[in-house]
Amino acid sequence: MPPFFPRATALPRMSSSAIQAKLAELGITLPPLAVPAAAYLPFVRTGNLVFISGHIAKKDGKPWVGQLGKDTDTATGQAAARAIAIDLLGTLQAATGDLGKVVRIVKVMSLVNSTPDFTEQHLVTNGCSELLAAVLGDAGKHARSAFGVAQIPMGACVEIELIAEVRD
Amino acid sequence: MPPFFPRATALPRMSSSAIQAKLAELGITLPPLAVPAAAYLPFVRTGNLVFISGHIAKKDGKPWVGQLGKDTDTATGQAAARAIAIDLLGTLQAATGDLGKVVRIVKVMSLVNSTPDFTEQHLVTNGCSELLAAVLGDAGKHARSAFGVAQIPMGACVEIELIAEVRD
Amino acid sequence: MPPFFPRATALPRMSSSAIQAKLAELGITLPPLAVPAAAYLPFVRTGNLVFISGHIAKKDGKPWVGQLGKDTDTATGQAAARAIAIDLLGTLQAATGDLGKVVRIVKVMSLVNSTPDFTEQHLVTNGCSELLAAVLGDAGKHARSAFGVAQIPMGACVEIELIAEVRD
Repeated sequence: MPPFFPRATALPRMSSSAIQAKLAELGITLPPLAVPAAAYLPFVRTGNLVFISGHIAKKDGKPWVGQLGKDTDTATGQAAARAIAIDLLGTLQAATGDLGKVVRIVKVMSLVNSTPDFTEQHLVTNGCSELLAAVLGDAGKHARSAFGVAQIPMGACVEIELIAEVRD
Repeated sequence: MPPFFPRATALPRMSSSAIQAKLAELGITLPPLAVPAAAYLPFVRTGNLVFISGHIAKKDGKPWVGQLGKDTDTATGQAAARAIAIDLLGTLQAATGDLGKVVRIVKVMSLVNSTPDFTEQHLVTNGCSELLAAVLGDAGKHARSAFGVAQIPMGACVEIELIAEVRD
Repeated sequence: MPPFFPRATALPRMSSSAIQAKLAELGITLPPLAVPAAAYLPFVRTGNLVFISGHIAKKDGKPWVGQLGKDTDTATGQAAARAIAIDLLGTLQAATGDLGKVVRIVKVMSLVNSTPDFTEQHLVTNGCSELLAAVLGDAGKHARSAFGVAQIPMGACVEIELIAEVRD
């Protein structure tokens, strides 16, 4: 049986201008690179992989505070996850200089600030996954893990990290 | 001092037929590729690495619901982790077309749905680690992290993601 | 816009003797490779990446038990994270045979045993991040994710895993 999915290198290449057009169509302006809140880097490249640090959800530039199952519902969590996806794309643009150099999003890890009763972390995380696919097409589709954590730095409701494959 | 462990490429290659024989001996039938519950892919390959999405524990095709320290004991958690390992191998077979192309399991991340009092996540996760080594031999041994999370999508008791090195 | 940060391969190479001198200056003796508490390996190398298993905090050779927000304060958590960084460097030395072969620390994932109210996981994790940078210089700076988990194996207050890029 042949592999069900093609290798990343078999994906059609998305041009920088097509990505910018898609962002404009969605009314999205990517943010500049944010300074991490602590002693680490926003991303590191090794070989053709870029590892992007966990980004917490922000609203109006401040931590988007909340806990799913307590004071934040699934739809709000999805909006927070979508906002993180935009911030991650901003960081990825800073890492590559041009989103057209993104071969594909490889993996997303999504941490949802959850009470012991909340079980819709996958639906919350779709807010991020769907935005990545909307902007980058097939190159935006990815493997992922999503789960509920006890807390997140500064009380944010969601935190997401990302691995991407890039070309020079 | 030389490295304590050999590089993956120094591992003896396991033939596809030997792996199939081991699965048969253990009475294991690998499942077909499952459709993810949300907007993501079951796996992504980049270079020689395959990143497999977090797989939740399932029983009779439905989420294996429970929380360790509350309504699920360590032995049951181990059985759930073993069941996930089988599902992960099924996905890895779909990703490679042939488990003989697996150079080695690189890393496992195991999320155990835990109360704030349960501290045996490592024992639960052994249910997965031991099955991987039983089927793949030295190539099944891996680095890993295991920890307790507040919740898991659909209330599953365990979720595990995996990174594998493969050859063409 | 060019990439904001250089590729790892552009980093100045740190000599083994400079690293040993820095460790001596800080009064740090790296531990020998520890035997994992369960069915897994302390590290796996694939290509030029080394994946190091999650290391739990230890004190006097035993699990450093505690939960942030309950019985352990941020400063103590930082000390535990710093102790883990030393253990991770010990494992990395065993993996490479010589820390001078470390191109850079790529990513750290830090799990802080937290009550639902504790929100300083980033400050706790700085205890690890700052030690890595102090010992390895720019090569010690890394991407990272830090978050609060419900529990950790054997009740440890912090667990950290690490990915490093190495050269032969």
